[in-house]
Amino acid sequence: MAKKIRLGILGGGGDSLIGVLHRVAAHINDNYEIVGAVFNPDHEKSIDFAKEIDIPTNRIYKDFDTLVEEEMKLPAEERIQVCSILTPNFLHFPMAKKLLDHGFHVICEKPMTTTYEEAKILEEAHKKAGVVFALTHTYTGYPMVRQMREMIKAGELGKIHKVDARYYQGWINPVIHDPAKRASVWRLDPKKAGISSCMGDIGVHAFNMIEYTTGIKIKSLLADFNYLYDDNQMDVDGTVLIRAGKHVKGVIRSSQVATGEENGLAIRIYGEKAALVWEQEKPNYLYRLSDDEPIQIYKPGNAYNSKLSLDGTKLPAGHPEGIFDAMANIYLGVARAIRKQDYNSGEFPTMTDGVRGLNFIEATVESNKKGNVWVDLDE
Amino acid sequence: MAKKIRLGILGGGGDSLIGVLHRVAAHINDNYEIVGAVFNPDHEKSIDFAKEIDIPTNRIYKDFDTLVEEEMKLPAEERIQVCSILTPNFLHFPMAKKLLDHGFHVICEKPMTTTYEEAKILEEAHKKAGVVFALTHTYTGYPMVRQMREMIKAGELGKIHKVDARYYQGWINPVIHDPAKRASVWRLDPKKAGISSCMGDIGVHAFNMIEYTTGIKIKSLLADFNYLYDDNQMDVDGTVLIRAGKHVKGVIRSSQVATGEENGLAIRIYGEKAALVWEQEKPNYLYRLSDDEPIQIYKPGNAYNSKLSLDGTKLPAGHPEGIFDAMANIYLGVARAIRKQDYNSGEFPTMTDGVRGLNFIEATVESNKKGNVWVDLDE
Amino acid sequence: MAKKIRLGILGGGGDSLIGVLHRVAAHINDNYEIVGAVFNPDHEKSIDFAKEIDIPTNRIYKDFDTLVEEEMKLPAEERIQVCSILTPNFLHFPMAKKLLDHGFHVICEKPMTTTYEEAKILEEAHKKAGVVFALTHTYTGYPMVRQMREMIKAGELGKIHKVDARYYQGWINPVIHDPAKRASVWRLDPKKAGISSCMGDIGVHAFNMIEYTTGIKIKSLLADFNYLYDDNQMDVDGTVLIRAGKHVKGVIRSSQVATGEENGLAIRIYGEKAALVWEQEKPNYLYRLSDDEPIQIYKPGNAYNSKLSLDGTKLPAGHPEGIFDAMANIYLGVARAIRKQDYNSGEFPTMTDGVRGLNFIEATVESNKKGNVWVDLDE
Amino acid sequence: MAKKIRLGILGGGGDSLIGVLHRVAAHINDNYEIVGAVFNPDHEKSIDFAKEIDIPTNRIYKDFDTLVEEEMKLPAEERIQVCSILTPNFLHFPMAKKLLDHGFHVICEKPMTTTYEEAKILEEAHKKAGVVFALTHTYTGYPMVRQMREMIKAGELGKIHKVDARYYQGWINPVIHDPAKRASVWRLDPKKAGISSCMGDIGVHAFNMIEYTTGIKIKSLLADFNYLYDDNQMDVDGTVLIRAGKHVKGVIRSSQVATGEENGLAIRIYGEKAALVWEQEKPNYLYRLSDDEPIQIYKPGNAYNSKLSLDGTKLPAGHPEGIFDAMANIYLGVARAIRKQDYNSGEFPTMTDGVRGLNFIEATVESNKKGNVWVDLDE
Repeated sequence: MAKKIRLGILGGGGDSLIGVLHRVAAHINDNYEIVGAVFNPDHEKSIDFAKEIDIPTNRIYKDFDTLVEEEMKLPAEERIQVCSILTPNFLHFPMAKKLLDHGFHVICEKPMTTTYEEAKILEEAHKKAGVVFALTHTYTGYPMVRQMREMIKAGELGKIHKVDARYYQGWINPVIHDPAKRASVWRLDPKKAGISSCMGDIGVHAFNMIEYTTGIKIKSLLADFNYLYDDNQMDVDGTVLIRAGKHVKGVIRSSQVATGEENGLAIRIYGEKAALVWEQEKPNYLYRLSDDEPIQIYKPGNAYNSKLSLDGTKLPAGHPEGIFDAMANIYLGVARAIRKQDYNSGEFPTMTDGVRGLNFIEATVESNKKGNVWVDLDE
Repeated sequence: MAKKIRLGILGGGGDSLIGVLHRVAAHINDNYEIVGAVFNPDHEKSIDFAKEIDIPTNRIYKDFDTLVEEEMKLPAEERIQVCSILTPNFLHFPMAKKLLDHGFHVICEKPMTTTYEEAKILEEAHKKAGVVFALTHTYTGYPMVRQMREMIKAGELGKIHKVDARYYQGWINPVIHDPAKRASVWRLDPKKAGISSCMGDIGVHAFNMIEYTTGIKIKSLLADFNYLYDDNQMDVDGTVLIRAGKHVKGVIRSSQVATGEENGLAIRIYGEKAALVWEQEKPNYLYRLSDDEPIQIYKPGNAYNSKLSLDGTKLPAGHPEGIFDAMANIYLGVARAIRKQDYNSGEFPTMTDGVRGLNFIEATVESNKKGNVWVDLDE
Repeated sequence: MAKKIRLGILGGGGDSLIGVLHRVAAHINDNYEIVGAVFNPDHEKSIDFAKEIDIPTNRIYKDFDTLVEEEMKLPAEERIQVCSILTPNFLHFPMAKKLLDHGFHVICEKPMTTTYEEAKILEEAHKKAGVVFALTHTYTGYPMVRQMREMIKAGELGKIHKVDARYYQGWINPVIHDPAKRASVWRLDPKKAGISSCMGDIGVHAFNMIEYTTGIKIKSLLADFNYLYDDNQMDVDGTVLIRAGKHVKGVIRSSQVATGEENGLAIRIYGEKAALVWEQEKPNYLYRLSDDEPIQIYKPGNAYNSKLSLDGTKLPAGHPEGIFDAMANIYLGVARAIRKQDYNSGEFPTMTDGVRGLNFIEATVESNKKGNVWVDLDE
Repeated sequence: MAKKIRLGILGGGGDSLIGVLHRVAAHINDNYEIVGAVFNPDHEKSIDFAKEIDIPTNRIYKDFDTLVEEEMKLPAEERIQVCSILTPNFLHFPMAKKLLDHGFHVICEKPMTTTYEEAKILEEAHKKAGVVFALTHTYTGYPMVRQMREMIKAGELGKIHKVDARYYQGWINPVIHDPAKRASVWRLDPKKAGISSCMGDIGVHAFNMIEYTTGIKIKSLLADFNYLYDDNQMDVDGTVLIRAGKHVKGVIRSSQVATGEENGLAIRIYGEKAALVWEQEKPNYLYRLSDDEPIQIYKPGNAYNSKLSLDGTKLPAGHPEGIFDAMANIYLGVARAIRKQDYNSGEFPTMTDGVRGLNFIEATVESNKKGNVWVDLDE
């Protein structure tokens, strides 16, 4: 391994949960060193946070533009190599765009942008930049999700004819039934959260999980949202019929009012020869069903797993891996990509996933708005 | 308990699995005696089967019409009181109609009829007859399904805003991919199996499970079917968006090509206050989720269960109950209804469930055919 | 199938749970007809119960001796063929002995006798009688338990080196902590319940499960009991170290004060080549572990199962089987044995299991009493 | 938070799995900085490894003694504050002893020492030193294990009367059946691995888990080991009867030849009022059983959990935590203890656990050797 990769962090200060997740993930494989950051729009808070996590404060900049400006003045071998964008959603696009334009590698939280249009602009910028762009669809980093991807790629399921993905959470349930409370949640305010709550925040994960694991491209969809109250303007629940071919169909189910559900992402993939079933909350168990054999349970770290899956497991079988491990595997993939200058290793979600995701979100909103009609995704 | 109820059986001879299920269920609570039957269209085979299960052959009739004719000649206290209809689907309607018209109680396998029109005719006949009509949606007989129904009725979930039911099987997968095989399966032949395979056979169970447990009436639906091959005329998979009110929505997912799935009926019901989750293949575990408490698992036979649930459990907690127990509970409910002359005890699915079911099946076919449009169910 | 087998029932009247279990099991495969009985020591109650379950009362005898006497007067082709003994434990031995001596087949609840000495006397009587003797270790009737037995017999696990069986219940917990209550439970009164509560009632099931599934004979044991209170004279919990060879060891754990446990019988069998794990409360899932393959889950009714396992499943895969099915399979085996006059078919536990069981129970009591020393079982 | 704690690492270089685990854990909460190390007895390899993980090489010492000597020359505010001992077992004692004698805080892998005698010497040294000594019984760091501890401490189970802990692994199974292979495994060589394999390596974890969660002290034990082959000198499997009072009993089961098991640590604790059940491979699910309520499942990150449990969870409920999180919580506890100079916070296993563990290991060996007799543990 070469020297540690110089990492910059945008956002993620204070009590930010996503901040913890990214920092831990960056550390897990000893690949990164945080050298610069804008943790907070308030410079003082940013500095304080740097002290709290005990990193040097000299490159804690007052704002994003200053970070770019000052870093560009540094010699390439000292400059931040990759920036992680953990800011509020509307800042993802301008920050990512500017970073790409200046030749930084980018790790970006999802949603990649707030509109599909921005996503396509970013895609163009990325094509020119020739750098890594990684989108943190964290769940793709689990060893058993990678195992799914590799088994399907190897043809073990045969032709796939049905997919069924679910992402059920319940966290909005305690607030939505009270008019005052629901009016005060930023996630339910279109001005702050964009055009979609449920699809934009979690439905898109289910969509990505299908495309990441199967390699299938969804061609069209029909969505029906639930707002629960007339005065609520944001989808808090929705079901999406999907088609990936004339005879390849499926469904994406997503909810933020699925009472009592915590982080219920799950996927079932049915092919001619076999099926795979996986749930995020029990990430170390992958079920393989078939017509005539006993059900099989794959677990991480066993020699029967694929190379990509094993690569993401650091301890012997039976030592549970969690969400930090999943994100760490994405950071590991990015580190390798940067070092090998191979930007399409398949080890992490990329710009393409981001563009597809925004296309998906906008298409579901359009379908629902037009009365649940079929809407095509772009190729 | 009074004398055993005199039971007649139509169909269910030879190796019939449904025959075993009904006979066992009838015996389990010592309520019924089989006194007459037409087990098979071939009279000789019918007689042989009676001998095989060692019941008297004197009332094994050559055909259904003879059964009705001869039984009507008997004094009321000797006559068959209730007939179980286990024949091929297209015979359900004429048999049930004639039995009702002659004042017999009826236990009928699903689908109740092959068309919604027939179902409505039967409903009229039933209104005039003043007898028990039970439809064997077997799964409603499980103690934990009854527990769901009672908990919801008691308001423990509050207002329900989302339902999600699934019925995934895989048994058509091994045949459908071979043109010769798929052409030879009776279930995929519209002439033999009616207008729908997947919705008619199992989707309707999921539909019934929602209405039975929640008391909600589904108002409209939008369905998308998958036929897998151009030359296959029957749905083998489908997803149905459902609405039971402006803000009460859900989905029914059903498949016969869900590779490797055996009998995967499952339901998730989300209300303001709590949620319930149940799976048919693990019928003795009912999960209750809520915003702020640990998940709770209800198991049969415990004193914390409702009266209706406990009524269906015969042994102490921890002795697993299976599908025979579920069907036996339906037969038990029918026996009580006959004895008490209380025909709407809520202990078993009735004519109303049958009519609703046919309405559902035809509506899904219509919605799919018209290009996935919303179709209303009748009130 | 020939005519139904003529079944006599001893005990099991009124609200008896074991009575329900046996009657249902006898009915499930259409093999038996109850023709005679002494349901209750009170003749009137016995007659009333016969009326309640609507069977003829002419052969409901006033007591057991009369039953034997009167039945022996009947011609062989009318006489009771097999008697099920469901009476209190201390009656098992005299009834079974007399029935065997008179040439009746016997189905006997466990424990077979109250002492090992009685068990050996009964064994001698059985050898002379040349009839079926079945001991209802019900759990051996589950399809997946039979599958274990067949897989092990076929060598799929290789040489077995470790076994671990558990039977945890909690039903005595609510009473034992109150001196008055614990003094009033018949199960804890040595005069009524014999020398052991926990080992005699459930530990012996775990012991039998090991020997039934593996074919191994346990050679010696060392037991430590827990009485919980000084004034309680009966074991309510105990752990038993077992040896079946110099390098074949294991443990049996049993408790009636395992708070909150319902009917937690479970077994883990480890062999050189693979392992099997099964739990009674989830009887339709058998887990196979190995060094280098994914975990496999066997489920009933699939073609990959053994003949004996499939024989016990009546409906397609995915239809849960419960405790009634398990007992029904034992009754089915007995029916076949009687018809084929093959009394060692391996389809149900026999006299040998009963003798071994009593040897086990007494050996655990002896070991515990002597200060946890090793006690040999007879060969 | 103050400045990062200066951490030294002994061992854990190259491909060491335990090295990864400790480094990740140290990083997770931004509390530690590795400032010095002897990763490997070969100084060059040690330096290379430092470069690989990109830390400064100036304090990578040629051996342990040099590390101590040189660090002691540094001013206190630059000196290593705490050392993690990840070396082979026989080095734990001399290293820990010397570190304590020089006033360093110590984090030590288990087994703490190779003999009970050493453990007691170390205990004395620790008493004099007035520093933190943490023993990495990693599994105690899981949020749900901490929840168990707190629930029991709060009296939610009432008086505990039975404990049952299991630690089953299968990794020695593939080698033990081949004479050549079993002779070449260091773990099975008493000269290299000490007096016990199975009890010393994993049985002691089960022992610690009981004492950590319940607060109970085990008073005496009786052990039976299995060596599988006459020429194998080390226990690869064993069962231990335990007593913590006249009426408080239990069992510890441990195996390295439990074919196909990965890392099967599990515990069941039964008290008068309720019971708790937990399994290491599904660490985020804690089951609470009781006499009369539904089973409850506790999951991390929910407000109903105890303070200590919640303290160990960094992301919202539903984001799975794994083994890294568990170890990170131990490191977090140590960091706090160092900063607060409160060395008995109860947030991590301590010297006392280490001493108890060695006492346990030696007692099991003694009991087995003497023919399975009861052996008392020291108070």
